[in-house]
Amino acid sequence: MDPRFTFGLWTVGNPGRDPFGGPTREPLDPADSVRKLAELGAWGVSLHDDDLVPWGTAAAERDRIVARFKSALEESGLGVGMATTNLFGHPAFKDGAFTSNDRAVRRAAVGKAMRSIDLGAELGAEVYVFWGGREGTEAAVAKDPRDALDRYREAIDVLADYVVEQGYELRFALEPKPNEPRGDMFLPTIGHALHFIGTLNRPEMVGVNPEVAHETMAGLSFVHGVGQALWAGKLFHIDLNAQRIGRYDQDFRFGAEDLKEAFLLVRLLERAGYEGPRHFDAHAYRNEDPDGVWEFAAGCMRTYLALAERARHFDSLPEVREALSAAGATELAQPTVDGSGPDDLKAEADALDALAARGYANERLDQLVVDVLLGVR
Amino acid sequence: MDPRFTFGLWTVGNPGRDPFGGPTREPLDPADSVRKLAELGAWGVSLHDDDLVPWGTAAAERDRIVARFKSALEESGLGVGMATTNLFGHPAFKDGAFTSNDRAVRRAAVGKAMRSIDLGAELGAEVYVFWGGREGTEAAVAKDPRDALDRYREAIDVLADYVVEQGYELRFALEPKPNEPRGDMFLPTIGHALHFIGTLNRPEMVGVNPEVAHETMAGLSFVHGVGQALWAGKLFHIDLNAQRIGRYDQDFRFGAEDLKEAFLLVRLLERAGYEGPRHFDAHAYRNEDPDGVWEFAAGCMRTYLALAERARHFDSLPEVREALSAAGATELAQPTVDGSGPDDLKAEADALDALAARGYANERLDQLVVDVLLGVR
Amino acid sequence: MDPRFTFGLWTVGNPGRDPFGGPTREPLDPADSVRKLAELGAWGVSLHDDDLVPWGTAAAERDRIVARFKSALEESGLGVGMATTNLFGHPAFKDGAFTSNDRAVRRAAVGKAMRSIDLGAELGAEVYVFWGGREGTEAAVAKDPRDALDRYREAIDVLADYVVEQGYELRFALEPKPNEPRGDMFLPTIGHALHFIGTLNRPEMVGVNPEVAHETMAGLSFVHGVGQALWAGKLFHIDLNAQRIGRYDQDFRFGAEDLKEAFLLVRLLERAGYEGPRHFDAHAYRNEDPDGVWEFAAGCMRTYLALAERARHFDSLPEVREALSAAGATELAQPTVDGSGPDDLKAEADALDALAARGYANERLDQLVVDVLLGVR
Amino acid sequence: MDPRFTFGLWTVGNPGRDPFGGPTREPLDPADSVRKLAELGAWGVSLHDDDLVPWGTAAAERDRIVARFKSALEESGLGVGMATTNLFGHPAFKDGAFTSNDRAVRRAAVGKAMRSIDLGAELGAEVYVFWGGREGTEAAVAKDPRDALDRYREAIDVLADYVVEQGYELRFALEPKPNEPRGDMFLPTIGHALHFIGTLNRPEMVGVNPEVAHETMAGLSFVHGVGQALWAGKLFHIDLNAQRIGRYDQDFRFGAEDLKEAFLLVRLLERAGYEGPRHFDAHAYRNEDPDGVWEFAAGCMRTYLALAERARHFDSLPEVREALSAAGATELAQPTVDGSGPDDLKAEADALDALAARGYANERLDQLVVDVLLGVR
Repeated sequence: MDPRFTFGLWTVGNPGRDPFGGPTREPLDPADSVRKLAELGAWGVSLHDDDLVPWGTAAAERDRIVARFKSALEESGLGVGMATTNLFGHPAFKDGAFTSNDRAVRRAAVGKAMRSIDLGAELGAEVYVFWGGREGTEAAVAKDPRDALDRYREAIDVLADYVVEQGYELRFALEPKPNEPRGDMFLPTIGHALHFIGTLNRPEMVGVNPEVAHETMAGLSFVHGVGQALWAGKLFHIDLNAQRIGRYDQDFRFGAEDLKEAFLLVRLLERAGYEGPRHFDAHAYRNEDPDGVWEFAAGCMRTYLALAERARHFDSLPEVREALSAAGATELAQPTVDGSGPDDLKAEADALDALAARGYANERLDQLVVDVLLGVR
Repeated sequence: MDPRFTFGLWTVGNPGRDPFGGPTREPLDPADSVRKLAELGAWGVSLHDDDLVPWGTAAAERDRIVARFKSALEESGLGVGMATTNLFGHPAFKDGAFTSNDRAVRRAAVGKAMRSIDLGAELGAEVYVFWGGREGTEAAVAKDPRDALDRYREAIDVLADYVVEQGYELRFALEPKPNEPRGDMFLPTIGHALHFIGTLNRPEMVGVNPEVAHETMAGLSFVHGVGQALWAGKLFHIDLNAQRIGRYDQDFRFGAEDLKEAFLLVRLLERAGYEGPRHFDAHAYRNEDPDGVWEFAAGCMRTYLALAERARHFDSLPEVREALSAAGATELAQPTVDGSGPDDLKAEADALDALAARGYANERLDQLVVDVLLGVR
Repeated sequence: MDPRFTFGLWTVGNPGRDPFGGPTREPLDPADSVRKLAELGAWGVSLHDDDLVPWGTAAAERDRIVARFKSALEESGLGVGMATTNLFGHPAFKDGAFTSNDRAVRRAAVGKAMRSIDLGAELGAEVYVFWGGREGTEAAVAKDPRDALDRYREAIDVLADYVVEQGYELRFALEPKPNEPRGDMFLPTIGHALHFIGTLNRPEMVGVNPEVAHETMAGLSFVHGVGQALWAGKLFHIDLNAQRIGRYDQDFRFGAEDLKEAFLLVRLLERAGYEGPRHFDAHAYRNEDPDGVWEFAAGCMRTYLALAERARHFDSLPEVREALSAAGATELAQPTVDGSGPDDLKAEADALDALAARGYANERLDQLVVDVLLGVR
Repeated sequence: MDPRFTFGLWTVGNPGRDPFGGPTREPLDPADSVRKLAELGAWGVSLHDDDLVPWGTAAAERDRIVARFKSALEESGLGVGMATTNLFGHPAFKDGAFTSNDRAVRRAAVGKAMRSIDLGAELGAEVYVFWGGREGTEAAVAKDPRDALDRYREAIDVLADYVVEQGYELRFALEPKPNEPRGDMFLPTIGHALHFIGTLNRPEMVGVNPEVAHETMAGLSFVHGVGQALWAGKLFHIDLNAQRIGRYDQDFRFGAEDLKEAFLLVRLLERAGYEGPRHFDAHAYRNEDPDGVWEFAAGCMRTYLALAERARHFDSLPEVREALSAAGATELAQPTVDGSGPDDLKAEADALDALAARGYANERLDQLVVDVLLGVR
């Protein structure tokens, strides 16, 4: 099956605002984005409630906007891969949404999420994402993290119940991020989110939506993180982009940074049979004009496909299979203990000195990755 | 209850070797370390198997060493807070221990851990720690992370069974670390470890041993991470030291970096009623002589006690209680939804515009932390 | 002399906008900021051209605004510590100002800086700052860094000539930053800026304006960086705030992060006799209301004064003098070679083995810093 | 001219020791390394004094070792690209070498450097490198950075005089590094080193030796840094390897991380006509056996050559030339002001609004880099 590429309305629609300057591009009409993405070969789009229906829109106008958007989707044949709630833009969320210290804000956040879930269901979204953009602190003393996690869990539990009660088909995916816009955010990594899911009332309904940029900000291996999510059966969605470690949230074009990691990620997704959307949560550089936005969007898909092809080629090479074998890569899938008792195992510890000589051919294997990436093999 | 301070034998015994230079201090006799730590007011020690009994020691000599060490403990009145296996020093572990690509190495690692658990139980350790120092990759292509997690889980499951079968009282604590000595390590953060524990056969027997330096290397909030571990009932042990973000593993004296975070950590541990050892996994600067080592050890405990006193003082101040209230810190403990239905909550979302005006007094509150830390309040 | 505290108009006037949400506070009238800062005990203010006179203001209105601002300064007795040009906010600067690939933009940038220098001179600013907020790249291939440095130098040379020709008293200070809002910025650190200054036509007229947050983003020691600037006689101005390593630009309240580094910085500035403004380039947390802004401003000054007092106290303690001596801190000021010839020095290398035993008492000394910071000594 | 590849004796000879484990490979005889590197196509080697002549070797033995090494060089036809002093391994350097607080250590360091310079000159090294591995602090209070820079400068000045007095042909190159093995090191970046060179007595004799890993640890753009060094005429030597941002010093095989940055670096070096050695300061992964070491060495050169070929191909493509032009990349080489006076320039500032619409085609251009890297164009 061809990978299904999706883009957030806010990605191609990003106007280029940043903390030090205003917009450099005009806003896009969501219906125009849909048409243009279809032309470029995308499978679908994703959206926040406010991307489509600006906060404060009256009910009648809301319905008109949604109907018009659904028409555009139908005409262009695009699907909706994912929907989510904007719980970070409104100034009332400045201290958090589900974990605001103000109970009335928390209740409003849950209510806004319910309205937005209705919209997502109406549009046929497969997955419903929660990114806790404001769930965190700068002054850590202001929130006991245990209380914050209680409130976070309560909100997700209530919303999962809501989905079930409404008979919606949605699954949830939590999107971790370590910091920005808050100094430190709750559920900062894939690991924290996976653990949190295990504490929910309906854990089976909730997975993760990891993002390249978010794990990379903290310098964590994205491939290992996605690996743990796949291992847990919890990769419900994925956000593809590029980022340098230890920086502001860059959301660059997929593949624009760290090609080797991007290659290993694509290889892992393809080999694992991940079937969800390949979702680009990225935006064009701020110094692009509207044409540059579509170069950006095309580039994301182009690089994914090129990396998928390189991954297939890599795995087809005899010298790669040989190097993987010299590295013992396949041996790692074999059980270690397999029924042996403590006495045997303790005795085998004495083999350590003899086992130290073996080399693992990692230089050879990694150079093969580089060779394949550079197209010289 | 007074906090129980413990030190690893390898901490005060650290000879000052680093990647660019050899030792600057003589090795210490573990029995001498025990006596000196008792003098300084520590409650106990912790150890790797090889710290006490060098790898390759014959059985009779091993027994003599252990007996002598137990005598030193008894004489000085020190306890053993924690024991662990050195699964990283031997060259055979260069590709991993429980997740080495070589099955024979994995089996030897499990066997070495069993032997070491026997030693820990003999010495009366409360907690048995697993730090996967070599479980990771530089060339990520060499290990499928899903296989690695399978093997990691298998090893912990087998060892937990072993403890139960032997009738030992030990609980396990997993110690996460993002990188160093491997390029990327499996179970890189508290969150990943907590999730992994939930996949084990005996999850109730296993908790985490978070370390200040390890989460801080990745720039994650240690207070939030420990908060999630406490929230999960999984803080079985803790490693205290100091570290700058984004650097090699520094293991500085507790409190030597980021005093505010150290204050908030001590406050959290004391308020949460954490009863385990306050374990210092740190070492003296390499340019210290033996006297400096004991200045280092005394400083760790001195700073912890000073911060605990400052935390109590902070919480006793009326202006702090007022600022916490203005921040809504206590309001976060109140349930958000409390039985309200979707219709009510959706309607309350309309309150957002009105809720935006409120300030959260975080500057006032955080300045109170600084004032208290600096002793000016 | 009491330290002269200054605040940027844009600091207390920061409306709380960030990449994920709009403003949370109303804009402040600069004249009101001046009055309020005077009340709180500040010595003066600093400003970008556009902070006072919005871009596009007609000449007559510009003069009215400036006159009104000068009245407010006079009435409140505040001075202008520093002025600077906003060369980052206008969308035309999206590819750079002095190093934009578009020559017309570069010329407009130089022209805007000249206009703004006129304003700074009119307001009596002591120092004129250049922060190259847009001078950099995301796609490094788009600019040869050697060309960019040529253009940067040309702009500063032309502007320095302009100042001399106009007979203004201004000195320039370059403000380095590693990244954000650009992926990578030219002159990323104090060191790069100091070197660049040495290549200018009027190097004596140009110094640096280091900022805590900027060096800290890259994990560099701010104290060492400021030390090198002082050593070079180039510390013309300084931006005080707080930041965690490896994150988005946080601009927190001075002292809110890394109290030990803040202490060492204040101690260095006070001991070195730095006479320029102590300029706070920071802003209140986004979840503050207008009252919180003034808590923030007061806190910056309060912490500086507390740290200056702690530094004096530290240096007055006999045990500190003793520890500094044991560390050899004063011995570092003595020349090493002092006329000795190669033969003597080569022979003295043989002393290395004997010299290895000495300890440097750094644990003792650093613990004294912590003790003094915590007010327990 | 073909690029001249060199390897440090310590790189292929690295035994795989790290902070958590001992060596995994036997030491290599320098003469064997020379022969093997010649076979693989290297141009030469580099060395620390102690790599060849272990510290403490008697004079006669020293001469024998050197003679044997020179024979090996002659037989294999290899040159010596660079020599340097090991001023970090001996325990006496634990508080610094040229900036140790102990004056006797500083003198011994200068003497050891003189002896080592003699060796470098005898072996015909082109460049003499200074890496201040121990010049720094963990406890910053222990050294006034201004004193440290005085001592650093004094040492380099004395040694430059020594070279001139001896009539050696050597040029010096300073190698910056931000941290590790010290908490914070003096001259942490290329910029700091370039500035420092400007303060020396013989600045013309001294340049820099930047290392990929060192700038990357701090998250700085290596391409921009090398660009500033080239711009200053100060790129005397270069250390090639690979590193992830914000980690321990990894010294991976060149090209093993961040292929785009490696591509841009090679393109810059080749276009700038850099004629010095392409020096690999890297080592094989610790889990390699001896064969893996030579895979590693071959991979470094192979990737450099592949990237140089890709760079030539990139610059030959018409679509690249077009995209560079659309980006204005060549326009940046044109002077900005070119004799225009202030009145003209101020007037041209009004053009900003009109100039804002232009796009800079950076997405297109950067995607071309990715396409070329992946061999799909």
